[in-house]
Amino acid sequence: MTLRKNTGQHLHPIFNVDELTAGIVKGDIAALGRGITLIESQHPDHTSLAQNLIQNCLPNCIPSFRIGITGVPGVGKSTFIENFGQILLQNGKKVAVLAIDPSSSISKGSILGDKTRMETLVKETHVFIRPSASGDNLGGVARKTRESIILCEAAGFDTILIETVGVGQSETVVHSMVDFFLLLQIPGAGDQLQGIKRGIIEMADLLVINKADGDNIPKANRTKADLDNALHFYPEKSSGWIASTSLCSALEKKGIEDIWEIMLNFKRVTQQNGYWKIHRDEQNKYWLLQTIEDRLKNDFYRKPGVKDQMIAMVKAMSENKITPFEAANALLNQ
Amino acid sequence: MTLRKNTGQHLHPIFNVDELTAGIVKGDIAALGRGITLIESQHPDHTSLAQNLIQNCLPNCIPSFRIGITGVPGVGKSTFIENFGQILLQNGKKVAVLAIDPSSSISKGSILGDKTRMETLVKETHVFIRPSASGDNLGGVARKTRESIILCEAAGFDTILIETVGVGQSETVVHSMVDFFLLLQIPGAGDQLQGIKRGIIEMADLLVINKADGDNIPKANRTKADLDNALHFYPEKSSGWIASTSLCSALEKKGIEDIWEIMLNFKRVTQQNGYWKIHRDEQNKYWLLQTIEDRLKNDFYRKPGVKDQMIAMVKAMSENKITPFEAANALLNQ
Repeated sequence: MTLRKNTGQHLHPIFNVDELTAGIVKGDIAALGRGITLIESQHPDHTSLAQNLIQNCLPNCIPSFRIGITGVPGVGKSTFIENFGQILLQNGKKVAVLAIDPSSSISKGSILGDKTRMETLVKETHVFIRPSASGDNLGGVARKTRESIILCEAAGFDTILIETVGVGQSETVVHSMVDFFLLLQIPGAGDQLQGIKRGIIEMADLLVINKADGDNIPKANRTKADLDNALHFYPEKSSGWIASTSLCSALEKKGIEDIWEIMLNFKRVTQQNGYWKIHRDEQNKYWLLQTIEDRLKNDFYRKPGVKDQMIAMVKAMSENKITPFEAANALLNQ
Repeated sequence: MTLRKNTGQHLHPIFNVDELTAGIVKGDIAALGRGITLIESQHPDHTSLAQNLIQNCLPNCIPSFRIGITGVPGVGKSTFIENFGQILLQNGKKVAVLAIDPSSSISKGSILGDKTRMETLVKETHVFIRPSASGDNLGGVARKTRESIILCEAAGFDTILIETVGVGQSETVVHSMVDFFLLLQIPGAGDQLQGIKRGIIEMADLLVINKADGDNIPKANRTKADLDNALHFYPEKSSGWIASTSLCSALEKKGIEDIWEIMLNFKRVTQQNGYWKIHRDEQNKYWLLQTIEDRLKNDFYRKPGVKDQMIAMVKAMSENKITPFEAANALLNQ
């Protein structure tokens, strides 16, 4: 990667798509990193280059297991991933960790931006760790993460972990791009349970109560019982898979292997009953429609004059001079 | 209203917008009914006539109080509205009752289609009752209901009740078009509470426990206490209004007047603090954006060839030949 002075003040890297593709397909981690930088670039020249790179990588993707990991701040996500990643490596896996950060800013360091995290894992050869794209909206970060998955798979990573802080919408976004969705919990979820949106629990394929160590063990067991009980009230999943709960201590490295066994079992069950492929096809359709609709909206609202007309219409509606439906027609029929 | 034989087999009513407007503004209930029929018509010739009628009515709208009433099936909505309507009439109000039926079919009779319901209220002079539009999607029914509100207000109805069965999305739709949102509950909500989506309770300005009569009274009191307790955990509303709970027996006509008092108080408070107008303006903006976005999507998906291309793209995505983002670009750039 060389830097070129462009017409403005900023230096922009020059990307060679063929070189990048060759590097990524060879499993060159530096090329993979540069490829993701290209995907994340806001520079208009880079958009089509990025799409070319992704299209080049697509036929080279290896089959992978995409796993979403979420939980409220303080649940111990990074310690969990640090240890879970080691188990995956021991099982001969190549692991990529990507993050979707709803705060949309690495500088806040809320997810992978904090370099002191995952200290051991980051040093491993068969591991690629990448914080989320910064300075973008959730939808934008999500699209870029989904495209980054393709690059990782073309580079030979067969296990992709997508991490997000459990604070709302970002879980839904992660859920829309993974095969398996793991929700981390902490002991004492009695009141915790109320804080979690029902919809998040509904998405989970496995609820793991982390920090089940030392004095926490009785509380962790009660939380497990509470969650087991709560799960009875949730509707059956279309995957045919029944969500369960599991205890672990990422700190003491206990219970992590069992979790990997559960995931492998999920993979067996859903590949056998056909859900695995159906689910991936559905996710593709979801992203196709989402992208189309976002573009249609953006293209419309960015048309010259639309913004001013909108302001005029909002005023006219407030004065009861026009209905929203008629105002919409007026705007659209221009 | 006369019937004309059109080119096909069906008879279509002829609508005269000027006559209809004059009738509605005079408060002629038959004209109001015909006007709503015009709004609900699927006939392409009627769309612009309906918009003309609504635009004519808009300057004639009187200030109104729009009240949403929802609750699960069996909660006693119709008996409640029957008695609540009587209280409104005694207070000199003119009452229109509209329904949004998520089942989208009058034939199912789940809301106002059932003619045996609201027997007394339906006979009153200052009352207009209209079941929801049939054979349409929820979005379509919602738009038509919102347009029907304008006609009712032009006809002099100052209190508009919008009823819906509490089964999911339809509450959100009702909430987007009313000033006050009432959630009916039945005694014994302990487990009930779990069934109701958190978001629905969050929307409510008042939770009324109906059927608080006879043997039910102790249970109703417990439910009230449970709900009062639950409400503490909900965030403050931007209206500055604090949601509360109330007991009533629609059957024994008890507690209904108190509910009307609470609503009047809400109106006083929110008109004073400015929220009333802000809220209506926000609803208009919501409907403006919603209508624009629906039209953009419909116009795109109905373009010739798009459907076939979509099918081809879905196949290509399933075979891993193209990403959803590239497929979306290909479809949009045609």
